[in-house]
Amino acid sequence: MDPNTSGLAQKLAKAEQSHLLQFWDELSPEEQADLTHELQGMDFQEINGFFKNAMETSSGSKQEKMDTRMEPVPREVLGSVTRDRENVKVWELEGLHCISQNKVAVLLLAGGQGTRLGVSYPKGMYDVGLPSHKTLFQIQAERILKLQQLAEQKHKVKCCIPWYIMTSGRTMDSTKDFFSKHNYFGLGKDNVIFFQQGMLPAMDYSGKIILENKGKLSMAPDGNGGLYRALGTQGIVDHMEQRGVEFIHVYCVDNILVKVADPAFVGFCVQKGADCGAKVVEKTNPTEAVGVVCKVDGRYQVVEYSEITLATAEKRSADGRLMFNAGNVANHFFSFSFLKDIVQKYEPQLQHHVAQKKIPYVNAQGQLIKPDKPNGIKMEKFVFDIFQFAKTFVVFEVLREDEFSPLKNADSQDGKDTPTTARHSLMSLHHRWVLNAGGHFIDENGRRVPAIPSLKDGTDLPIKCEISPLVSYGGEGLEELVKAREFQPTLMINESGIHELVKNGV
Amino acid sequence: MDPNTSGLAQKLAKAEQSHLLQFWDELSPEEQADLTHELQGMDFQEINGFFKNAMETSSGSKQEKMDTRMEPVPREVLGSVTRDRENVKVWELEGLHCISQNKVAVLLLAGGQGTRLGVSYPKGMYDVGLPSHKTLFQIQAERILKLQQLAEQKHKVKCCIPWYIMTSGRTMDSTKDFFSKHNYFGLGKDNVIFFQQGMLPAMDYSGKIILENKGKLSMAPDGNGGLYRALGTQGIVDHMEQRGVEFIHVYCVDNILVKVADPAFVGFCVQKGADCGAKVVEKTNPTEAVGVVCKVDGRYQVVEYSEITLATAEKRSADGRLMFNAGNVANHFFSFSFLKDIVQKYEPQLQHHVAQKKIPYVNAQGQLIKPDKPNGIKMEKFVFDIFQFAKTFVVFEVLREDEFSPLKNADSQDGKDTPTTARHSLMSLHHRWVLNAGGHFIDENGRRVPAIPSLKDGTDLPIKCEISPLVSYGGEGLEELVKAREFQPTLMINESGIHELVKNGV
Repeated sequence: MDPNTSGLAQKLAKAEQSHLLQFWDELSPEEQADLTHELQGMDFQEINGFFKNAMETSSGSKQEKMDTRMEPVPREVLGSVTRDRENVKVWELEGLHCISQNKVAVLLLAGGQGTRLGVSYPKGMYDVGLPSHKTLFQIQAERILKLQQLAEQKHKVKCCIPWYIMTSGRTMDSTKDFFSKHNYFGLGKDNVIFFQQGMLPAMDYSGKIILENKGKLSMAPDGNGGLYRALGTQGIVDHMEQRGVEFIHVYCVDNILVKVADPAFVGFCVQKGADCGAKVVEKTNPTEAVGVVCKVDGRYQVVEYSEITLATAEKRSADGRLMFNAGNVANHFFSFSFLKDIVQKYEPQLQHHVAQKKIPYVNAQGQLIKPDKPNGIKMEKFVFDIFQFAKTFVVFEVLREDEFSPLKNADSQDGKDTPTTARHSLMSLHHRWVLNAGGHFIDENGRRVPAIPSLKDGTDLPIKCEISPLVSYGGEGLEELVKAREFQPTLMINESGIHELVKNGV
Repeated sequence: MDPNTSGLAQKLAKAEQSHLLQFWDELSPEEQADLTHELQGMDFQEINGFFKNAMETSSGSKQEKMDTRMEPVPREVLGSVTRDRENVKVWELEGLHCISQNKVAVLLLAGGQGTRLGVSYPKGMYDVGLPSHKTLFQIQAERILKLQQLAEQKHKVKCCIPWYIMTSGRTMDSTKDFFSKHNYFGLGKDNVIFFQQGMLPAMDYSGKIILENKGKLSMAPDGNGGLYRALGTQGIVDHMEQRGVEFIHVYCVDNILVKVADPAFVGFCVQKGADCGAKVVEKTNPTEAVGVVCKVDGRYQVVEYSEITLATAEKRSADGRLMFNAGNVANHFFSFSFLKDIVQKYEPQLQHHVAQKKIPYVNAQGQLIKPDKPNGIKMEKFVFDIFQFAKTFVVFEVLREDEFSPLKNADSQDGKDTPTTARHSLMSLHHRWVLNAGGHFIDENGRRVPAIPSLKDGTDLPIKCEISPLVSYGGEGLEELVKAREFQPTLMINESGIHELVKNGV
């Protein structure tokens, strides 16, 4: 249908986006229909408004002001697994109790594509090369299963932790197929609920939407903070309410060590009466590229590492620690009522952040150009943008080596956050579990391997050891399996028993 | 000369080392002469005694006992650059004062070969690929020069920091040649004093000395603790005494960030009246492969990571820090009188440690064998073995990112302590110096680069920035050069001025 007679051309002209039709006459009838469909579904007034606001917020000398307005997290809102050790057990019990009452849900942010990782499928489907070759999705699913069992055993009731999984337009189908193919890893189809975050067009610096090809707009997910809009539009808030969910643990798919629905974290937040909580790890090096949880003008937020000066990053408290050391690991707690308020009241107030990107585009001559420096922006909201609305905000500090090892990049020399580092982190944790449960490792000559293996000649690798989440969620229950026993790596403990795998064997 | 008539055969028979002559008849006259010379210089009774003692010490269930006997460093003997910030300036002034009075010497442990680094020359001659292509030796020499200048400017006197360099039999000639060729980097030939640590034969598990080929023993340096014997036998203690040296800073060649003769460390130790001090960095991950300074049975020592159980490594103090967190970085302070006592009285009491190694050898059939698992031992003393004799021992905690980045391994995927990590550490430190002095970095579009650079796409590298030690020893004196100025990397500041090097240019 001709865009002039359909009113589409007028709509675009009004929004100053008429260039989107510049190749109309070159498109096939199918392409014309697709483009028409895409454009008719868009609210250009809203998108132009997002652009205007986002650009205004992002310009200006924000940095100078930020530094003087930042305050660290006060000790009284902080729970720490190292500094409050005596309380951790109590919090864990509280969390397990909530789980047993079906009050706890987990919400997975899995809308990203594995671009930096170099794969074309969702990150959760990635196999980092563990002995079991489990994917991130499977590891997380099994942790949920195990936690349900632990709560059931403790409280003698059946319970369920519903798992809400946010995908994006680009990852929805493959994610759903993957779960279906694997029979939801035993969790039950009804307890794994998929929903989809929104997409927004990429725009050039003057606010024109970028064409990815002659008949298609350049679209990208609207950031992990797109969560809040999607929770409303996709009926997830209602679903949670029907299920009686009271507490939600939100996390990102890429952290191989993530303690899904962590009862200690949930219990801590519940006991503190918090509506919103953030799990953090201690930032110890001033120039580490991690955002920090802090107060700005009296309200909590995450300040990104690119937003602070070195002088602020290097500030220290009297105890010698970095003053701004609450490193954000994208692990959050929300009470249901807080989340509902956000979705229903506060979401529209959130500004989009501007991410400058190199965005491939077709130029006026119809040629596809791959720019070598940023030529436009993507607009994103962040999951932590809502901290500012919390009435009772708390922070829970955990150990990095126990809980945080994200998978972001492909393996490469000096690579950080790669499949190799993820694999090593998990095996190192499980190695420590075995040692702490009284087990020992021996080498091929039968000699005990020291607890801290030497990495001297560069060829030594961490002890290969993997324990299925179905056997242990957080290191518990291993004594009866390993105490006073000696194992030669590779050690794999799963629901079928203890396996010592022959090197280079299958 | 026939070994039977010379008495050599009898000497060997008495020491049960007769196998060393098993290929005598196959050797050329020159080889026979060399072997005779080597064997005549050796004290087999002493070597056999070393072996017996070392093997006795190393066997037994040492580990279990160690854990229960360990105590952390008490707060009152600890000085910390993060927890005692207000004192650091005072200590620095004290140290500079001592330097100005010619009381401070530095002693470099450079006897190791770059085996793991994959080079056949001394490590100090390595170029890690800085913009200047300076070697580790040059960087350290220039830091000494600069420190002398700072002390001279402050106290209006000429002064000198003598530099004692311990090499081994295998590195002496090339080290001396290198310094001579580079005109001692401006330090003056008389102020750079070379001496040589001893060598000991490698032995199999039954105490037989290993032959490296038919006419040559397998010899290795006697560990960095060979220092103490060498200080006596090579007349270095006397040399120090003649020079009026009162305080000595001892360090290893491989740390690119080493603050040679660090006035804050020296001043701290002097003000505390210490005879012995260790510089440490905080160990934050329980399984980090670093030795920790602690007390065992009331005496200070370094406990190696391989000697402790995981339970001990994971112990934490009430403040949440690891209890045993004083990570040894091979940076020590000795008073001259303490060092003299060590050399003259205590050195013989030190046991050798046993290092199990894969040692190539000729078998009884005369074939060269390269074993694929350990077949014998090397005997070593460690530089920190003498902590136990200190009357007033202190510990000085500094920041890892400012002071410790050792060069140990060749570049490789996931490599730790490589030329790349060393180069990045130094450039990151100098980048921070520039920022803290009020300078800024801009990208190729003239935009300011954030203080904490993003490493998101894996191709971003640290800001390239190198400041000659001749310009600044520890970040001082840069304001007048960089304040409120903008630089496009690569930035190089040296004695001839400020240089912005064009990318990929010369």
